[in-house]
Amino acid sequence: MSQDTTLTIEALTGRVEEIFRKGGLNEVQAGAVARVIVAGERDACKSHGIYRIEGALRTVKAGKVKPDAIPELTVTEGSAIVKVNAKGGFANPAVELGVPALAERARACGLAALVINDCTHFSALWPEVEALTAQGLAGLVMCPSYSTVAPTGGNKPLLGTNPVAFGWPRPGKSPYVFDFATSVAARGEIELHRRAGKQLPEGWAIDAEGKPTTDPEAALAGAMLPFGGHKGSAIGTMVELLAGIMIGDLTSPEVLDYLGTTTLSPVHGELILAFSPEAFAAGRAGDPFARAEVLFEAIVGQGARLPSQRRYAARAKSQAEGITLTAAEMEQLDRLLALGLDAIA
Amino acid sequence: MSQDTTLTIEALTGRVEEIFRKGGLNEVQAGAVARVIVAGERDACKSHGIYRIEGALRTVKAGKVKPDAIPELTVTEGSAIVKVNAKGGFANPAVELGVPALAERARACGLAALVINDCTHFSALWPEVEALTAQGLAGLVMCPSYSTVAPTGGNKPLLGTNPVAFGWPRPGKSPYVFDFATSVAARGEIELHRRAGKQLPEGWAIDAEGKPTTDPEAALAGAMLPFGGHKGSAIGTMVELLAGIMIGDLTSPEVLDYLGTTTLSPVHGELILAFSPEAFAAGRAGDPFARAEVLFEAIVGQGARLPSQRRYAARAKSQAEGITLTAAEMEQLDRLLALGLDAIA
Repeated sequence: MSQDTTLTIEALTGRVEEIFRKGGLNEVQAGAVARVIVAGERDACKSHGIYRIEGALRTVKAGKVKPDAIPELTVTEGSAIVKVNAKGGFANPAVELGVPALAERARACGLAALVINDCTHFSALWPEVEALTAQGLAGLVMCPSYSTVAPTGGNKPLLGTNPVAFGWPRPGKSPYVFDFATSVAARGEIELHRRAGKQLPEGWAIDAEGKPTTDPEAALAGAMLPFGGHKGSAIGTMVELLAGIMIGDLTSPEVLDYLGTTTLSPVHGELILAFSPEAFAAGRAGDPFARAEVLFEAIVGQGARLPSQRRYAARAKSQAEGITLTAAEMEQLDRLLALGLDAIA
Repeated sequence: MSQDTTLTIEALTGRVEEIFRKGGLNEVQAGAVARVIVAGERDACKSHGIYRIEGALRTVKAGKVKPDAIPELTVTEGSAIVKVNAKGGFANPAVELGVPALAERARACGLAALVINDCTHFSALWPEVEALTAQGLAGLVMCPSYSTVAPTGGNKPLLGTNPVAFGWPRPGKSPYVFDFATSVAARGEIELHRRAGKQLPEGWAIDAEGKPTTDPEAALAGAMLPFGGHKGSAIGTMVELLAGIMIGDLTSPEVLDYLGTTTLSPVHGELILAFSPEAFAAGRAGDPFARAEVLFEAIVGQGARLPSQRRYAARAKSQAEGITLTAAEMEQLDRLLALGLDAIA
């Protein structure tokens, strides 16, 4: 433990931003990507933390994301749709650019949508959701991924892990936020079982012949399954339709065709819906935020948990005490900063 | 089989409408409720067909729905929210009143919401979704119910079965539509197991102490479980927040408090979102409807099914051959028509 290093959130953000500048990203890309990666590390979401730096740089090196992209915002008068074209860059600066306009439209129209097109997306969706709850708006976010999940009754990868995230603002408290894949498990969890030589739980995957399997090798050659059977499969399909096809961007099978691999970050679009509780509740009895607290208390009061609480606890600790990295993690950061894209195999 | 009676869809609709007029419903209530009940019967959704007439009349007799309500539409310039106050009547005439205004707003703004307040709702959600897909719009619909489902990790009924339905238009074909409870099973299925003296499948329910049970009696005294574990629980919670609290209407625990029973139709609101694929896809390559067909072909091509196909097959048969009712069903219709609310125990 004596070799651990503790950095403030700001110091780690600065270092990660420097790594991305060294890797060729312009200011707007490096800043937004560093902020979202450090937010993951801060919240002890290690799978979306500094571990992701290398994958992002690998995607740059492969020429599948434009490191110097400047996202472009389009707001059309009278429309509740705000669009940001990421211009082939990462999704994160596009989201940062679009959220203020989305919030303005949601307040004016009651609800609004932010469409992100032509982006590379590798982060969790809760940063998007929290950007809305921070403004007193509810948010619903979804995006495709690459084909790794078989629709229920099928036997081949077609749908992506297609995450869906939702947030509800809680004045003075961390928001109600969930963010999950519409597959039973994330692909990385199957890979971790394979490395550890462990069998998968039942119901996670099928083999290449479409038969249920608990063998991680067979699962990786086959397909993952949607969560909740045919219901999760239907929701995953909805994500392809709304956040792929409807917004004129790639579906999960098209992403896989384009990249030819799942080792690079996927290229697609993203759909972010924002709702103004004040506008919806106008003229009705009761304050929606106070009423929501009654519901949350009833959930917690019977021993159930609200989602994201572990993340918020980790965040509070990081804000108070800083973020602690191992010697190996620090060495890796130093190496990436020294070598830039040359550090990527 | 010689005692079965076959009626055209129109003839059955007329008869059911007459029953509701006899039960005291005004023209706007009786017509809309009859149409949605006959749509269920037509699609061989027996659980939402003529079986529901008695429950609807029981709710009238209990004074928990206003049979003479005239729903009121409010459209606010510049807003993407359309509101219909059902004025204590059934949801169905409120939906019929609101959908044209919702469609107009969705085309103008790209997306829009229809809020139904102060309604009694007993029908499936796919009629709402299909009213949107018929106009070339995608739709997402949700509403609370009464507390019968424990949040994951909890041990008491709190959430409702909180259905979610989605539809995508398919020009020249029946739309892609799903409509399901966010509980593992519908409460009626547990009741059917109880009557048949059959054990429940694992994972459907917990007993009053919060322990897993396969005994239907214990399940009815305990709580149902959400589909897909914590993910379904989170989606069910989202339905309470968006389609209960946000729209200024009752949550599932509030509905149960108000009615004091689950034998009457629930009183609450409903949230209907409509999306214009043309508006979202504008300026992007590819026709969204043609691209969706490629996705559907890939699903069907690997042996998976699209949702609602059984329903559409039954509908085609009903349209061609009429709807066949048993002698007992015909007698019940005659009885309800002769006695009106006096037929209700």
